[in-house]
This record gives sequence, structure tokens and C-alpha cells, in this order.
Amino acid sequence: MRDVSIVGIGQTPVGEHWEKPLRILGSEAVLFALNHAGLDRTEALYVGNMLSGQLSRQQNLGALIADHAGMRGIEAIKVEAACASGAAALRMAYIAVAGGIHDIVVACGVEKMTDSLSNRTSSALATAADALYEGDHGLTFVALNALLMQRYLHEYGYQRADFAGFSINAHHNAVHNPNAMFRRAISVGSFERAPMIASPVSLLDSSGIGDGAAAVVLMPTEMARTHGLRGVRIAGSAVATDSVALHDRRDPMFLRACALSTQRALAQASLRPEHIDFFELHDAFTIMAALSLEACGFAKKGEGVRMAMEDEISLVGKLPVCTMGGLKARGHPVGATGLYQAVEAVQQLLGLAGENQLQGCRVGMTQNIGGSGANAITHIFERID
Amino acid sequence: MRDVSIVGIGQTPVGEHWEKPLRILGSEAVLFALNHAGLDRTEALYVGNMLSGQLSRQQNLGALIADHAGMRGIEAIKVEAACASGAAALRMAYIAVAGGIHDIVVACGVEKMTDSLSNRTSSALATAADALYEGDHGLTFVALNALLMQRYLHEYGYQRADFAGFSINAHHNAVHNPNAMFRRAISVGSFERAPMIASPVSLLDSSGIGDGAAAVVLMPTEMARTHGLRGVRIAGSAVATDSVALHDRRDPMFLRACALSTQRALAQASLRPEHIDFFELHDAFTIMAALSLEACGFAKKGEGVRMAMEDEISLVGKLPVCTMGGLKARGHPVGATGLYQAVEAVQQLLGLAGENQLQGCRVGMTQNIGGSGANAITHIFERID
Repeated sequence: MRDVSIVGIGQTPVGEHWEKPLRILGSEAVLFALNHAGLDRTEALYVGNMLSGQLSRQQNLGALIADHAGMRGIEAIKVEAACASGAAALRMAYIAVAGGIHDIVVACGVEKMTDSLSNRTSSALATAADALYEGDHGLTFVALNALLMQRYLHEYGYQRADFAGFSINAHHNAVHNPNAMFRRAISVGSFERAPMIASPVSLLDSSGIGDGAAAVVLMPTEMARTHGLRGVRIAGSAVATDSVALHDRRDPMFLRACALSTQRALAQASLRPEHIDFFELHDAFTIMAALSLEACGFAKKGEGVRMAMEDEISLVGKLPVCTMGGLKARGHPVGATGLYQAVEAVQQLLGLAGENQLQGCRVGMTQNIGGSGANAITHIFERID
Repeated sequence: MRDVSIVGIGQTPVGEHWEKPLRILGSEAVLFALNHAGLDRTEALYVGNMLSGQLSRQQNLGALIADHAGMRGIEAIKVEAACASGAAALRMAYIAVAGGIHDIVVACGVEKMTDSLSNRTSSALATAADALYEGDHGLTFVALNALLMQRYLHEYGYQRADFAGFSINAHHNAVHNPNAMFRRAISVGSFERAPMIASPVSLLDSSGIGDGAAAVVLMPTEMARTHGLRGVRIAGSAVATDSVALHDRRDPMFLRACALSTQRALAQASLRPEHIDFFELHDAFTIMAALSLEACGFAKKGEGVRMAMEDEISLVGKLPVCTMGGLKARGHPVGATGLYQAVEAVQQLLGLAGENQLQGCRVGMTQNIGGSGANAITHIFERID
């Protein structure tokens, strides 16, 4: 296997892109990323997307976006793993370059969620759950996360307000991210006053619904060096799965797929959790942030939320998370999110994170979660000196 | 890159599986294939599917099927390329094994199309077309193929009845395939009397709507040899794309993605079209069969249909096609089709094709087409002596 680097990144702002169909959003991100790398072509394109068939009545985004990016003819395929579709596209691109099948590959994630009646979006998102045991009975994704959060509060004795730190940190970090959807800080007070969606999950525990696309260009590290391209190594890449239905897990408070994929990615990178300088985690809901920190080995069981309470996750904390706003405030266009995370990790490691730049960071981790932990895709990125 | 072989195949019958949800159909095929290979596990699973989000309100089939096959935890991802989703899953599995990322990978295709009102199925299938230029204006897939067929008749001066040979051959070959959906022969008379769907495409020009799943197990050829497993080499694997919208092609009578992916697969295999002993082509409609034969280099432009008229495609013809019934008569559960094709190619090359066994075949080709030629995925399989 070859060592692989990301040599180009591209993203559109996350927001309500009423004027741009999927093909335009996606091809913009692809062309931004290629342009950033100084390239004008790719051998293959893997597109992460979850909802286009349901919300835009458009499948086959691989061919569609390749064509609209001016690259008709190339290999192009869409991959889907619910909300982890973006990282799944990155994973496929990594496999193709690491394995020597292609030298230059673009992974793109794109999602358009606002261009639809909102109840259709919630209903489409529920297809990430188990249709027979959850979705068909009316459980939305907010409801599933509410069940998890309620259990967490009960099991470990926390209050709703203890989760505020996750959202406050995310919103704080989004203020200086020009591509973030919610560029305003929030206070403990506004978190506490936020309207309830599905108790105990409030509006400010939840990531919003938005449109967006992000992309990265992959190349063998050796080739990047030969071409004088500045890149970031992919030191680890791993996928793991769990049951789709929540009720079918021995312990719903333990995200086994997150644990497994983190262990695999760390083993590939020959690293331990303490080597991770920052973590772009999957804070679709605050409870997911807490459970992810625990499963990945950054906090003990039942203590993930303490990292937010004790301010360990801020830009100057022990483990900065969601450094550009995370899913909560940068936004969560589901199939694109995994690639926004990768783009932001590269920004930090190349010193391109502007006001949010972490000093001296060398290793960043991203984790994209599908469903309520049905799959987790973890990548570890390392600065090249 | 490592040489890769298929060491196990599995399939369910194609039909109306009202009693089996996607997870059961898919995991049956996966377990049949592993069992055929004498294995009890896989490192990764790539699932091809197009319509589950729209018709079964279930996404994230990778995790779901991995779990129901008893392999919770493994890497599992869904891939989609419209009706070429099955071959896209095979392509991903090939890349992962050839590149040395995994040693044992299962590619599975699964689709459930009957468990829905039929107008929802047609409408869901139309998402393979270009939503903005085709689907949103009411063009179904039959209508798109009718436009192509009408143009073909006009351009080259054929009659509708000239296409009969494709369907007659497919139905003939399905009679002895226990997994085929339509196991009855048809005559020229029944072809001519078939009800019109979208002129000039009749019921007997069209593949039916069905449910089904098929799977293959991939492994490095060297490892298969070491373990004493009997397999078939994947000598070529290639994906190519074209515009999704028909109007946007210089020549709608030329399926450029089919041509490109065939050229790439043949080049990888160091073969020419005349080396192909049989061809599992994508006869979703008879016009697709004719255009595919032309684009792939088996017939001159405007003469693809002659191969059916002159009986060159039968089991004893110059180039047998659809040897187990093809999409027309084995059935076309869209996201599974590419894997049925692969399973059938392996059956022929291992001498497992029963009454339909081709004598002395060494090299078989499969081609799975997404949309009306928006993508084509071609694989070449070679017998190991």
C-alpha cells in the first residue's frame, strides 16, 4: 500500500442554496479542490451523498457531477453510508490511491436538504434508521437521539444544561469560518432557553438542515513530493459498523462502531488517543459528541460530557473539537459532512484555519457517524514536515 | 496491484419476494456466496443498491446487511450508480482486494422493487435520469429508451420486429435458470403481439420489475490457490461515464461510456473483443442490447440488431449473450443486476451453468449500464486452468 496525501481542498458555504442544484454545488467543490492543488483533472471521482434520490429525485450523482465538472468519461461512483456518506467517499478514494489503482482521485460530498418541504427532509433522514424497527414507527432522528440523551442523563446523573458546552464551543468556532451556516456565538442562557424539539433534545443540541459540498484531492505522498505539492498525510483510515437499530445493542451508551474504527485507524497510524491534537467529531446532536468522545477513548464512560463542562474542547483546550464550527454550527449537509471535516482538518494542519488556527498541531482526527452509530468512519491526518 | 479472483457466488431467485425485506434478501446472497467459497467471514462488504431509500425507506444497507449476515463490526458501505450499482459494488470490492487493503471482500447487490405501488417504482427509477432535463418533465425510463429506439429505427431503417431476437434469446436461456423470473420461451408472434408501453418499446422489449440479491466473494488469486479454492480471475475492471441527459450527447446512438469502459477493461486484460467468448450485456431494453454491442466493438454502428436477427447471440452463436436469461428474462432488480451478471459469468467459466453451459468458454465479459448510458461498468472474467 502506498502512502496517500490530500493535496487540495474545496468547499462551498453551508447554507440555503436555493439557486444551485446538486450538480453545481458538487462540481464547484470538486473544481475548488483541484484548483487548490493546481491540477485540472482527476482520474476518478467518488461522491458521498445520502438524500438526493428522495429529496431531489436525482440519483447517479457520480456521473452527473463528473460531467458538470467538465470530466465526462472518468470513473465516477456515488457511495452512501447515511450521514457518514462523505467519509465513505473519502474512504473509497483512499483505497483506490493507496492500492495503486489510481494516482489522482477526488472525493466529494454533496447534499441539498433545504429545497424540499421540511417534513420530507425529516422523513428522508429517518431512512438512516432501521425502517422496520424504528423509521416505520415514526421515530425521527431527533427522537432517536432524545432516547439516547434521556438514557445518558438517567444513567449518569447529568442535567440537560451540562451539554451546553458542546454547542457553545461549536458556535464560537463558527464565527470566523466564512463557510459556516451559523456564524454567531451563543450563551449558556440561550442554550437553556432554546425551544425543545424532542425532550431532552432542544434546538441548540441539534445540527441544522443545510445544503453544501466539500471535496478533497488525493494523491500518493511520493508523487505529491515529486510535484512539489503541499499536502497532509492520511495516516489512518477505517470503517466499522454496528446494528442499525438502537434496541439491538448490548449497551446503547457505547458506540461500538466508533470505538472499532478509531482503534483500527490509530493502529494503522501507530498512534494512541493522546497523540491526537484535535478532533473533528460528529456532533449532529450534543449526545453524539459525548458518546463519540467516550467510545474513541478520549473520555471514560459517562464522562464525555465533562470535557464540555470543563472546557477541554475549546481551541485552547486539551482536545479541541469542531474547530471550524462542527456539525452544529458549520452545518450538517449530511452526505457532505465527512468531507467538510476532512477539509477542516487539512486547514488546521496546513495553517489555513485563520482566526481558529491551532498552534503547533501535528495530528488531527475526523469521525463521521452514520445513523445512530450504525457506522463510523475515522480518518487520521498528519502534517508533513 | 494483486491479481484477484472470485471464489464464491450466491444468488436468490429473482421474483416477487413479498415475505423478505431487503436485509434478508441481501444477507442470504452474502451467506450463499461465502458458503460456496467455504468461508465464514469477510473483511468488508460493499452493497450495490439504487432504490431502497425511495421504495423501502431504508438507507445505510451496508451496515444493515453486514449485521444481518452476522458480521456486525466489519467495514460495510453502499455504492450507487443507478442501474449499474451492482457492478459498482463489484468494482469497489475489486479495488480493495487488488490494492491490498483487504484480502477477503464480498460484493453484494440487492433490490426490492415490487413491494411498492408500481407508479412509485417507475417514478423512483426515473431518478436515474437527469432530474432537471428529463425526470422532472415526466420522462420515464421506458420513454427514454423509446426515444432511442425510435431514432435507431429511423436512422438505420429497421422494423420493430427486428429486435425480437434479443428477447427470444433471453427468454429461451431463462427456461433452465432456476433463479430466473420469467422461465418461459416466447415466439416471434408473441413478441409482435406484445402490448405497447411507449412506442416503439413493447412489454417484450423491456425487462420486468423484480426483487433479488446476488453476491460474489473476492480474494487475491494467489491466496485462493494457496487455500485450494477454485475461482475465476477478474482480468479487467473499468468504469466510464457520459452525460446523464440524453440530449447532451453528440451522438445519442453511440454509448460512449460503454465504449470507454470496454476499451479500458480489454486493455487491462490485454485482450481484444474477438477474445470474448460470451457477453452478459445490459438488456434492460432491446435497444440497449443493440447499442451496447455496437459501442463495445462487437458490431458496427447500426448493425447491433443484426446480431439478434442472424442468431449470432444464442448459446451456440458467435457471441452468446444473456446466457442465463439476461435482464429481460432472469430479471432486473436494478441494484442487484451487475452481480447477477458476475455470478452467471462465473457459472459459465466454472462449468456450473447446467443446461445452458457453453462449451470450452475461457473468457466472459459483463457490462452493467447506469441510466441511459450515463455510466458503464465492464468486467472481464477469465477461467483459471
